[in-house]
Order: sequence, then structure tokens, then C-alpha cells
Amino acid sequence: MTQHKIRAAVVGYGNIGRYVVEALQEADDFEIAGIVRRSAANPPVELAGYKIATDIDELGKVDVAILCTPTREVEVHAAPLLAKGINTVDSYDIHTSITELRRHLSEVAKANGTVAIISAGWDPGSDSIVRALMQAAAPKGLTYTNFGPGMSMGHSVCARSKKGVRDALSMTIPKGTGLHRRMVYVELEPGTSLDEVSAAIKSDPYFSHDETHVIEVASVDAVRDMGHGVNMTRKGTSGRTPNQRFEFNMTINNPALTAQILVGTARASMRQAPGAYTMIEIPVIDLLPGDREELVAALV
Amino acid sequence: MTQHKIRAAVVGYGNIGRYVVEALQEADDFEIAGIVRRSAANPPVELAGYKIATDIDELGKVDVAILCTPTREVEVHAAPLLAKGINTVDSYDIHTSITELRRHLSEVAKANGTVAIISAGWDPGSDSIVRALMQAAAPKGLTYTNFGPGMSMGHSVCARSKKGVRDALSMTIPKGTGLHRRMVYVELEPGTSLDEVSAAIKSDPYFSHDETHVIEVASVDAVRDMGHGVNMTRKGTSGRTPNQRFEFNMTINNPALTAQILVGTARASMRQAPGAYTMIEIPVIDLLPGDREELVAALV
Repeated sequence: MTQHKIRAAVVGYGNIGRYVVEALQEADDFEIAGIVRRSAANPPVELAGYKIATDIDELGKVDVAILCTPTREVEVHAAPLLAKGINTVDSYDIHTSITELRRHLSEVAKANGTVAIISAGWDPGSDSIVRALMQAAAPKGLTYTNFGPGMSMGHSVCARSKKGVRDALSMTIPKGTGLHRRMVYVELEPGTSLDEVSAAIKSDPYFSHDETHVIEVASVDAVRDMGHGVNMTRKGTSGRTPNQRFEFNMTINNPALTAQILVGTARASMRQAPGAYTMIEIPVIDLLPGDREELVAALV
Repeated sequence: MTQHKIRAAVVGYGNIGRYVVEALQEADDFEIAGIVRRSAANPPVELAGYKIATDIDELGKVDVAILCTPTREVEVHAAPLLAKGINTVDSYDIHTSITELRRHLSEVAKANGTVAIISAGWDPGSDSIVRALMQAAAPKGLTYTNFGPGMSMGHSVCARSKKGVRDALSMTIPKGTGLHRRMVYVELEPGTSLDEVSAAIKSDPYFSHDETHVIEVASVDAVRDMGHGVNMTRKGTSGRTPNQRFEFNMTINNPALTAQILVGTARASMRQAPGAYTMIEIPVIDLLPGDREELVAALV
């Protein structure tokens, strides 16, 4: 069966963008239309042979844009892309604003016959599917999502955005029952007050609900490690039968998994009706390449 | 928001059927249309107040039939129900014939504007969703599904169907890397040869691929325990990053979980386009009751 390859643009080329390019290179059903960056000058050596543009319109036909920008820029990038006929996927990770983003992008997508899949990383993202499934399996009960130990990219980017912070790394430490400690390691610009930086970080909605410690280090790079993990548990009742226990664990390279999930949802975006979706709203089979009946035979 | 309740019929009232009735009683969006049995006489006391019928047509309007019959009778029950405008869900568990069942029921369902969700127990079923998700998260790698220790209902029913077997219980023992030992405890009719029963069980496709031991016991009831479990692991590569590790564990009452999944998929059947689906082909959110946006806010 000859099929047109899905033409994907990578928007933003930071941590996630780099891994998205690798995941696309490994996916036979995709073609990289190009990379959209703030500047097309001096592209990194691994992008030799790819179109680099500051405007997606320079990349020819694009089926889907994989947004690898900071999470707070997702909406401003996604809406105009959806309006010009390009599907979008993102790993938007501010849990409290997901329904709002979904509602807005859904309007734009439906009006323009396009598809947005939002919050498609690992949490929110693949973990959300496991959470929803655990709840379906035992509707009454408690689920705890315990993250780490590992670096939170969203929290690190947030800490890095504070005035006077040259670099930052936020580690997530599981305290159990879904509670976490945030250990934030910061490299400061000369003359910056650690107290002021600490206050700015602790009052940000990203951090304000958790126990947070801000620690100055000489080099953030020296404490960097992209590993992360999750332990998700549910103990609940199926029908009237209590004590049903479920557990999901993973130990992963964080940006590599996020990138892989983004590529899977980019594929899935080609198979949905116009609108905006979170991962629990799309069939998992749509994340996978290949013949549907063969996938059913292999995986069900 | 006032919504019509989903009218469900329970077809078959053995192990699973009993737990399905309990799960339906706990689900506010369902109404039990009745129970279909081979005989409507002498209903068990817990069914007082429910219609019991030998023919589903006696139950009035039925939206969805939850098939709780032996797995090999699924197709003969499902096809005529789908043809008369009733959705069906089942926990058909012969992995090698799932695509065939799906293809046949899909034809009938599409021709009649109905929906079948097949193989909707925990394996195949909810485990299939986790398996597909793990593969999407790390496309290259190995997944091992390790069952037990626990009683396999499908294997027990199969062993019980052999000539001379009064009762049987098949325990699944995990050997690791997806290999299993089957320990089959049988209660025999007087004059039955254990060797013949053993040969009949070991040559059945249900057992022929696994190390199987058949052991005679005085009472199967004395060794019965409905607990079961699974340990599913994947170690694989996301993009070009190896050593991504995923693990899913559960310890559950087997028929209670199967029943709960059946009730969730019965709900989901009301939300799909006509056709036959396995669980990896439907969004997990459709298994859950309640407002979609609230579910997204709570679970994503």
C-alpha cells in the first residue's frame, strides 16, 4: 500500500525539538517539512539538509506542526496554524488551564477543518490515558501520581524565566500520595538576590502549591540529568468489589519520551474529525503506524 | 442535564453476569432492562425485581447487551443482537481469533447501524490499551505480559467442558518473559480416566502452547480463589533513545474487573459510529460517565 507521507514541521528547536527530529527520522510514515526557528541563520550541524525557516509558509505543504515551544507560547502558535489549515500537537503542561486551551483551539480547529491534540507529552499525556483507564477499571477509589525523582522541564523553564536567573533546573522529588517537593537549582547573574529569585519562583503558579526549595549553584550544567520517572497507583472498587489495585511505573529520558508521544499524536491528528482533543479522547491505536487489523492482532 | 439512562441487558448469568449486575447497579447512567438466561424459572434471590427472560425481545427496548456467555458462544449471540438494533459488548478472549470476530461483527454492525465492542475484559481489554500505549511510547523494544498467579476463567471453562470433568480450575503461573505454566485442578466424574482428560486439555488450543499440568483433586471448590494479577513490562527506544522502561501491575478480583470493563465499554458503545471495535480503537474517556470537560479537567 503506497501512502503519502505525513509532512510535519517542527516549531521550536530546543530540548524537545531536537528529540522530535530524531523520532521523525525513525518514523517511516513521516517526512520532515522543515524546522521553524526564531532565526534561520547558523543552523546546528545535525539539521543539515533540512529546510530551516522563520515562517512556516516557507516550508511548502505542512500537514501537522509539532509545537516544541515553551508551554506558555503554545496557544499563540497553535491558533494561527490551525486557522491556516495545519494540524497542531503540543505538550502543554499547565494542568489547570488545559480545558480552557482545549475550548479555544477547538473553536478555531472546527472552523477551519483542522485538528489540535493538546497536552500530548507524558504527563499530561500518556499518563492521562493510564489514569483514565484506572478510573474506568475501578470507578471508586483514589489515584496517586508520584513524579520523579527527575527534572521537570516545565518547572525548569519557568524558573529560568525569572529575572536574574542565568540557568535553572527544577528537580521533582516524590513525597508519596501525590505530594512532591521541588528542589530548584539556580545559577544567578552577578548582583542578583537569591531571596528575590526564591520569592519569585515560589509565588509562581507552577510552584506555589508544592514545598519548594531554591538553591544557588555555581553550575546548573553540573547537576543536569534528563532522566525522570513516575509511579502511579490506584486502589479502588470495581462494581461492589473493593481492593482492586493498579500500578504504573516508568523510568525514562524525559524529552525523548515527550518527543515520541508528540510524533504519535501528530500521526493520530490525521485520523480525527476537526476539533481539539486531549490524549484520553483519541483511540490509542491512532498513535501507531501500520495496518489497523495487524495492530489489533498484535496488541489486543 | 437530564439524560435517558442506558438500558442494558445482561446475557448469561454465571460468574461474570453476577458481577455485571452489581456494576450496573452502581452506575447511575444505566438501567437494567433485564437478564437473559437459558431458563427464566427459579431466579436467584438477588435478581428479585428484575425481568428474567429466555428471549431478549421480552425485555422491551434494549440499548446494549452485555454478553456474559462462554467466550465461544459470543459470536452466535452477538450477530443476531447487532442485526436487531442492539449494541453488544463481550470479553471474547481467544487472542488468535479476535480479528476474525471483529471483521464479521463489523459487517453486521455496519449493516444495521449498531456497535460491537469485542474482547473488552482485562486481557484482552484494558491490558491491550496499556500494551498499545507502551508501544507508542517506545516503538522499538519488547513487551512482556506476565499473568498471575491467578485463575483463568477462560481456561477453567475450557477444562470444565471436557468429557468426564465435573469441575475444573486452571491457575496461570508466570514464568517470566511472557511464559506461563498452567496448573489445572480437576474434579472427575466416577470412572473417568485422568490420562484421557489430561490429553484432551493439553491438546486444546487454549492450552497447547503452554506447559500444562493436570491434577486431580477431590474438591475444586476448596482450591478456588478469584484473585488474579498481571505484570506487564516494556523496555524500548523512544526515537533514538534506548532504555525507556515501562511497567504495569495489577492485583484484582478477576470477574469483578471484567464486569466493570464490560459496563464501561457498554457505555462507550453508545458513543461510537457503527462497526466493531476492540478497546484500543475507542477513546478511554468514552468508558467513563459524566461531563466530558469535567473528565478532561480531572484526569488529563
